[in-house]
Amino acid sequence: MTTDLRAAARTADGIRTRTHHWTPAPPAASYTGLSGEQVLRAIVAGEIPAPPIASTLGFRLAEVGPGSAVFEGTTGEHLYNPLGSVHGGYLATLLDSALGCAVMSLLPAGTGYTTTQLNVHLVRPVFADTGLLRCEALALHVGRTVATAEARVTGVADGRLYAHGTTTCAVLPPRPAPAAP
Amino acid sequence: MTTDLRAAARTADGIRTRTHHWTPAPPAASYTGLSGEQVLRAIVAGEIPAPPIASTLGFRLAEVGPGSAVFEGTTGEHLYNPLGSVHGGYLATLLDSALGCAVMSLLPAGTGYTTTQLNVHLVRPVFADTGLLRCEALALHVGRTVATAEARVTGVADGRLYAHGTTTCAVLPPRPAPAAP
Amino acid sequence: MTTDLRAAARTADGIRTRTHHWTPAPPAASYTGLSGEQVLRAIVAGEIPAPPIASTLGFRLAEVGPGSAVFEGTTGEHLYNPLGSVHGGYLATLLDSALGCAVMSLLPAGTGYTTTQLNVHLVRPVFADTGLLRCEALALHVGRTVATAEARVTGVADGRLYAHGTTTCAVLPPRPAPAAP
Amino acid sequence: MTTDLRAAARTADGIRTRTHHWTPAPPAASYTGLSGEQVLRAIVAGEIPAPPIASTLGFRLAEVGPGSAVFEGTTGEHLYNPLGSVHGGYLATLLDSALGCAVMSLLPAGTGYTTTQLNVHLVRPVFADTGLLRCEALALHVGRTVATAEARVTGVADGRLYAHGTTTCAVLPPRPAPAAP
Repeated sequence: MTTDLRAAARTADGIRTRTHHWTPAPPAASYTGLSGEQVLRAIVAGEIPAPPIASTLGFRLAEVGPGSAVFEGTTGEHLYNPLGSVHGGYLATLLDSALGCAVMSLLPAGTGYTTTQLNVHLVRPVFADTGLLRCEALALHVGRTVATAEARVTGVADGRLYAHGTTTCAVLPPRPAPAAP
Repeated sequence: MTTDLRAAARTADGIRTRTHHWTPAPPAASYTGLSGEQVLRAIVAGEIPAPPIASTLGFRLAEVGPGSAVFEGTTGEHLYNPLGSVHGGYLATLLDSALGCAVMSLLPAGTGYTTTQLNVHLVRPVFADTGLLRCEALALHVGRTVATAEARVTGVADGRLYAHGTTTCAVLPPRPAPAAP
Repeated sequence: MTTDLRAAARTADGIRTRTHHWTPAPPAASYTGLSGEQVLRAIVAGEIPAPPIASTLGFRLAEVGPGSAVFEGTTGEHLYNPLGSVHGGYLATLLDSALGCAVMSLLPAGTGYTTTQLNVHLVRPVFADTGLLRCEALALHVGRTVATAEARVTGVADGRLYAHGTTTCAVLPPRPAPAAP
Repeated sequence: MTTDLRAAARTADGIRTRTHHWTPAPPAASYTGLSGEQVLRAIVAGEIPAPPIASTLGFRLAEVGPGSAVFEGTTGEHLYNPLGSVHGGYLATLLDSALGCAVMSLLPAGTGYTTTQLNVHLVRPVFADTGLLRCEALALHVGRTVATAEARVTGVADGRLYAHGTTTCAVLPPRPAPAAP
């Protein structure tokens, strides 16, 4: 270890603390009668609690339409990687969220889905002062067994493209309703 | 909104709170004299603070070797998506971290890199009780301008594969040192 | 081997033959004074020969603009995989071609590029009678070291989406011109 | 168009011609009683004709095992792109073929599959004199609805890595056999 490194460690200005909160989600079975878009609109409206990951990282579902979804996320030091910029995993999480919800918004009640593949392109570094990011996704194909979507992350203040990506989701056909007792 | 949904909201057992801590990293310029592997070994040893994202999500760099890196992460409810499982973005973040560090471990002092592309395959759902995840990455190609790596996420308890992925990094050639004053 | 298989082999109606032609390309150094868009427009105009792969598979560069490129390809039995449909590699080749040319169309004379990563989504099977395919690509980011683009393949007759994808290219900075003799 | 370009066009040494052959495949329904591995072993043994794309581009299925597949391909000028090297689409086709067959080799009789996503990393240029390429694939996960695999392309003569990639396949459950007449 070099002298440089020890000197660098001394520049640290103390330990940072961050506290965040979430409301545990009701079991997914509670949404059985709702279409994907209805569930997502209930999250936007605050009628269904946002998922825990949203408060852990700092983002939210802002808009949803048939075949589209928009997330907004705020950058901060809690997202930093060792290189001194926002970790690519945060952008991957925004993209994964928006891509999945764009697909989900086209699924009828009782039809599930799961993300099986995510491809992410990171085109510019993001910093704590980049400010609000907007991630907009569009479903491109929703078939019986497979769905795909594309999304872009842009800065709200500067309008620049920071990341983009695509996904492959497996569409899970509805199961027969359980027999009444 | 249906009666089903209101009933579901009543099942919530109160708001959860989580607090985490990190030490701000010294400026990257402090590591100028160190190779990529030296910087990463200093993080493993605790001589350089882990990045903020590691405490935000709950993972750490566990091992590093020339051309490889291992991260370990603990699952929990704070990582959950609206479907009631760990968000794919957490697995993407583990993969991105391990892939980037496997590449970085082969870079000489003064050579930088940035992740430009990440491809993630999610093959099984992860839950809060899945326990410790291990993400192992190997560099496959480190050239003058481009590097690639592959990684897998397995459960420590069950040995099963949960996710895997690859990356493309841009290798940034060393810049001439600034002239002495 | 089962009786089924032997019966199947007997259904074959004889060996097919296909002949194709190309003009060897001049050395790339011949284009040194031309921008990427100029080279591509010369291929569209027939002033530079189309590359051999275009005749081998059966496709052509149809349009090019600053930041965009369109390829058209004709399907046929020579492209079939063992499953009885057009091989995904053909669609990958169309996408790779269009994505690379969309990036190239924005590069100044003397600046090279190479495709380092290609992500392809195949959303519908393509058959010999699907007819003409159109692959349209747009550059999303062209920086000093990295460029990305997105593309879609649609059927000209039916307007349906068959495949889509994205790319990461390495941008290679211009080299100093060789000294005059 | 510049003088440079016209000079370059004059360097062309005449039109090249290439003829290739294939045997039309029997309808896939002929293989109904065979497992994926049995069909692939029959192709290796020449009992089922190789697909047309194999002769169009110049590659063959060389080995297959439960969960693995190896393709070999010969490079040549007919595969060239406008940059004067083998088109990335050829490498994508080798990877797609090997990845799909590695998955198929684990599927029981009556279970189909289709490739829905392909990710390709190109790490070194390939030329006509690179010689024989070997593409080795391994299935990583084969579930009820989704399968993934990884593959690498290396030079047989030099042992170097030229490309690598992964895939997502949709696994199609067996359909009930048609009733006997």
